Amino acid sequence: MNNKPLILVTNDDGIEAKGLQALVETVRLYGKVVVVAPAEPQSGMSHAISVKTPLQVKKIDEKGDVIQYECIGTPVDCVKIAFNQLLRQKPDLLVSGINHGSNSSTSIFYSGTMGAALEGCINHIPSIGFSLLSLDPNADLSASRYFAKQIVDKVLANGLPKSICLNVNIPPLPKDKIAGIKVTRQTKGFWKEEFDKRIDSLGRSYYWLTGYFHNDEPDAPDTDEWALKNNFVSIVPLHADLTCYDSLKEIQDWNF
Amino acid sequence: MNNKPLILVTNDDGIEAKGLQALVETVRLYGKVVVVAPAEPQSGMSHAISVKTPLQVKKIDEKGDVIQYECIGTPVDCVKIAFNQLLRQKPDLLVSGINHGSNSSTSIFYSGTMGAALEGCINHIPSIGFSLLSLDPNADLSASRYFAKQIVDKVLANGLPKSICLNVNIPPLPKDKIAGIKVTRQTKGFWKEEFDKRIDSLGRSYYWLTGYFHNDEPDAPDTDEWALKNNFVSIVPLHADLTCYDSLKEIQDWNF
Repeated sequence: MNNKPLILVTNDDGIEAKGLQALVETVRLYGKVVVVAPAEPQSGMSHAISVKTPLQVKKIDEKGDVIQYECIGTPVDCVKIAFNQLLRQKPDLLVSGINHGSNSSTSIFYSGTMGAALEGCINHIPSIGFSLLSLDPNADLSASRYFAKQIVDKVLANGLPKSICLNVNIPPLPKDKIAGIKVTRQTKGFWKEEFDKRIDSLGRSYYWLTGYFHNDEPDAPDTDEWALKNNFVSIVPLHADLTCYDSLKEIQDWNF
Repeated sequence: MNNKPLILVTNDDGIEAKGLQALVETVRLYGKVVVVAPAEPQSGMSHAISVKTPLQVKKIDEKGDVIQYECIGTPVDCVKIAFNQLLRQKPDLLVSGINHGSNSSTSIFYSGTMGAALEGCINHIPSIGFSLLSLDPNADLSASRYFAKQIVDKVLANGLPKSICLNVNIPPLPKDKIAGIKVTRQTKGFWKEEFDKRIDSLGRSYYWLTGYFHNDEPDAPDTDEWALKNNFVSIVPLHADLTCYDSLKEIQDWNF
């Protein structure tokens, strides 16, 4: 049977992350899997690409229908080199993750996991980013695998509308404590930074980025933050269009 | 007079770039200017933040109403540390650029210039990213300065709708060859990569990222690409919401 789907897997925590391998175990049930993941962790790398350094790629494993490459580069570099050098055909699905940490609301802008999923979406490949709301690299991934499988089932059966990807966030709970799956919109909110200022041995100051998330609309039940706080898995459909259509007319009326 | 606007200036080409200094010269006419720009070029860094390394910031110049800092970090790091450590109050305006190179269509996803502008927008600060369609670091910036001033005039006079920023791209033409300013939407399109594969002295292959832009809708006169091809300055209003509202119902109907 030659029409088994081809599935590209990547992430931003790097090829060694347990979340990546959990996702590989989930999607290998469906078809041929090619993993192209960063050699080193790339959290916070967003949609960055390597313009000053070349990419290096190495095949590190091939077992049955699963081939794994590591790439010295960003998550989006991994996707680009997969599409253009490593895969003989367009993949039927791109999955990114399972990220160790939340990528809800505006966190998608900083996220390498979601950078990779959006790169798939820009290239018209059905794409899904998965994130578990736990930073523990050894977190229990069994509920995440269960829900990832449910969502991949639906996407392979139904397809996705052209040029959209899904941002899936999963509460850090056992499967039987999760209330279900809710399709939501991106919450309005932002990170309030609280830099940790320190002084080095030469008396120069340096700063570590820390902070907490501020939710502009904590009571809106159609948002991803609300769903997650209420123990639902959240799915937000995203597109790669940042135009604010509601503002076009107002700015056009400025009459340059 | 104490109500002169406070203007934050950043970019992704680095503190030394002529485009940055041209923008400083443009906005210093309006009020107090604080520059916080990367110490080194950061093209392609998108919305990346430094999570594995601390930020270092140094004041490098202070003349009259213009203070300049360089930051070892990404463009978004520069904005975050400005908001949280360097500025005593919220800025009235954030300007990013003038970038040496286009940031039209989906290029905004890779762009550090637009990463910084979107970070302003996420934090509810009126923000504008400026890009000149020339990669020449010594390109003539006089037309760019002229149009940047026109646009800053309007933004300071009218304000911007809450939580939007402007993506301004400028054709590489003398002022009298520019057809005017057009408010547009983000073109649908993507970069077709053509990796340049080389072999190092140890026989290992490595890849340089190259490519060209593919426009999915070259004949749509309401898009930024069309405007730029027809010698207009393009302004796209952007928001930091990637939700595809048109797809919510379809995905909700999957009935998980």
